[in-house]
Amino acid sequence: MRRWDTVAIIGVGLIGGSIGLALRKRKLAKHVVGVGRRKSSLAKALACGCVTNTTTSVSRGVANAELIVVCTPVEQIAEHVSAAAAHCSDGTIVTDAGSAKAELVAQIDSALVHGRQGRPFFVGSHPIAGSEKTGPEAARADLFEDRVVVVTPTDRTDAGAVAAIEAFWRSLSATVVRMSPEEHDAALAATSHLPHLVASALAAATADELLPLTGSGWQDTTRVAAGDAELWRQIFLANQAHTLKALEDFETVLSRFRNALIHADGALLASLLAEGKRRRDAVGS
Amino acid sequence: MRRWDTVAIIGVGLIGGSIGLALRKRKLAKHVVGVGRRKSSLAKALACGCVTNTTTSVSRGVANAELIVVCTPVEQIAEHVSAAAAHCSDGTIVTDAGSAKAELVAQIDSALVHGRQGRPFFVGSHPIAGSEKTGPEAARADLFEDRVVVVTPTDRTDAGAVAAIEAFWRSLSATVVRMSPEEHDAALAATSHLPHLVASALAAATADELLPLTGSGWQDTTRVAAGDAELWRQIFLANQAHTLKALEDFETVLSRFRNALIHADGALLASLLAEGKRRRDAVGS
Repeated sequence: MRRWDTVAIIGVGLIGGSIGLALRKRKLAKHVVGVGRRKSSLAKALACGCVTNTTTSVSRGVANAELIVVCTPVEQIAEHVSAAAAHCSDGTIVTDAGSAKAELVAQIDSALVHGRQGRPFFVGSHPIAGSEKTGPEAARADLFEDRVVVVTPTDRTDAGAVAAIEAFWRSLSATVVRMSPEEHDAALAATSHLPHLVASALAAATADELLPLTGSGWQDTTRVAAGDAELWRQIFLANQAHTLKALEDFETVLSRFRNALIHADGALLASLLAEGKRRRDAVGS
Repeated sequence: MRRWDTVAIIGVGLIGGSIGLALRKRKLAKHVVGVGRRKSSLAKALACGCVTNTTTSVSRGVANAELIVVCTPVEQIAEHVSAAAAHCSDGTIVTDAGSAKAELVAQIDSALVHGRQGRPFFVGSHPIAGSEKTGPEAARADLFEDRVVVVTPTDRTDAGAVAAIEAFWRSLSATVVRMSPEEHDAALAATSHLPHLVASALAAATADELLPLTGSGWQDTTRVAAGDAELWRQIFLANQAHTLKALEDFETVLSRFRNALIHADGALLASLLAEGKRRRDAVGS
C-alpha cells in the first residue's frame, strides 16, 4: 500500500476531513496539509486530527504534495484544480470528490491540456459516502470503508494516475468502480440526486402544523433534506439533464400509484409496493 | 398510574408485542394475554417476554381482560373488535393501533351501538411509532417513549374510557394528541402514508443495475419501502382520498423543482431546498 509523504486536501469539510482522518489513522501519509479559506474551519480540522498542517494559501499548500484531493463544492472544483496545477510539482496526482462529473471533468481536462501539458495528472473521483452533517467536526476515519468510490477517467487520462488513484481509495477500504463521467452522472442522478430532490420536496410539502405528527418513517424519508442547500443547488445545476430524466422516471411510477389509489386497485397497489420492497431489500440497511 | 390485572393483545406483532413488553417491564399488568392465529408467532411472543399467556381463541383470550388492545392489520380490526366485544365483560375498554381511523371508527361505533350498547367501550388509537421490521421479535419496550399517540374519540365515545385510554398510553411514556378520526386521517396521509408511497415509488424507480451505486441518502429515503407490503396496501385503501390529496400537494412541490431544473433557475432551487431543510431541521433526527 502506497504511503505518501505529503497529501494536500483543498476544502476540509466532512469529506476532506474524513480523508485526512483516514490517511492519518492508517498511517498512509506523513503530512496532511489542509487548505481552506476560513482560518476557523482549518483550526477545527487541525483540532479534530484531520490534518497535520493548515494554510489558506493554495500555492503553499500544494508545493510539496504528491497527491492533491480537491473536496470543495462542485462549482469551485475546476478553479481549485487549476490553482493547484499552477503551483504543484511535476507528476503530482490530483483528484476530487465532486458529485457531478461530466461538465467538470471536461472543463478540467481542457484546462490542463491548454496549460502545462502532462503535469499534473488529474483523475475524477466521487466517493459515494456522506451525511446530512457538514464540517470537519463531522469527519469519520471510517467514512469510506465498504463504500463505493466511482473513478471517472477519460481517453485523455494518464493510466498510471488512474491506477494510483484507484489504489488510493482502496487504501481507505473503499470499493472502486470505474465509469465514464457521463455514465456516472446518469447513474448518480437516479441513486443520489433524485432521492435528495424527493426528500426535500416531501419535507417542503409537509405543513408546519403537521410536523409534530411525523414519525420515524417521515424522518427517514426526509433525512437528507437537512443537508447543505447551497451544495445541493450546485449539484442539481451541474447534473441538470440527468436529474430531470430521473425525475421523469420517478413521476411515471408515482402516477401508477396515483391510478391505483384513484381506482382503489388493491392488486396494483400490492404489486407496486412489492416492487419497491424487492429493490429496497436488495440493498439492505 | 393504573395497574391492570389482565390486558389482552389481539395481534402480537411489532406493535402488539411492544405494548406487552412495555406493560410488563413497567409492571403495569399482572397478566398479558397474547391472542393470535398462528401458534408459532404466539410462541415467539412468549419467548420474547411480550406476553405471559397465549391463546388462539379470542373468546378465551378476552374473557378476563379489563383492557383489550387490537393490533391486527387495518382490514381485520373491526372484525376483531366485534369478536372481542361478544366475549368480554361489561365495562371492558377496547382500543386499537390502526393507521387509518375514519372508516374504521365509524364501522366499529355503529357495530357496537347496534350490538350490546354501552359495553364494551371502544376508543380509537394510533401510536405513531413503528419500524420497517415486523413480528414480536422486533418488539421494543421503549417503542412508545416520547412518541405521539393519536386518540380519536367521536361524539359517541364514553368520556371515562377516553380518559382511561389516554392514561394508558401515557403510562407507556407516550405523548397523547386527541383528534377526530377525519382530522387524523388527513394529517397522517401527509406525515406517514405519503412518505411511504414516495419511498416505495423511489425504490421501484431505481433500476436494478444501479442499486450497487446507492449510498446512505438513497438508503434513508427508501428505508420504509422495506415494510410489509400487505399492511401498507390496506392502509392506502383505508385512507385513499386523503392520501391522494397529499400526493397532489407533493406533486405540486415536485413540479416546482422540475421547473427550476428545466430553467436552470439556481435561485428557485436554492429557495426550494432551503424550505425543505427548514422543515426537516424543525423535526430533528
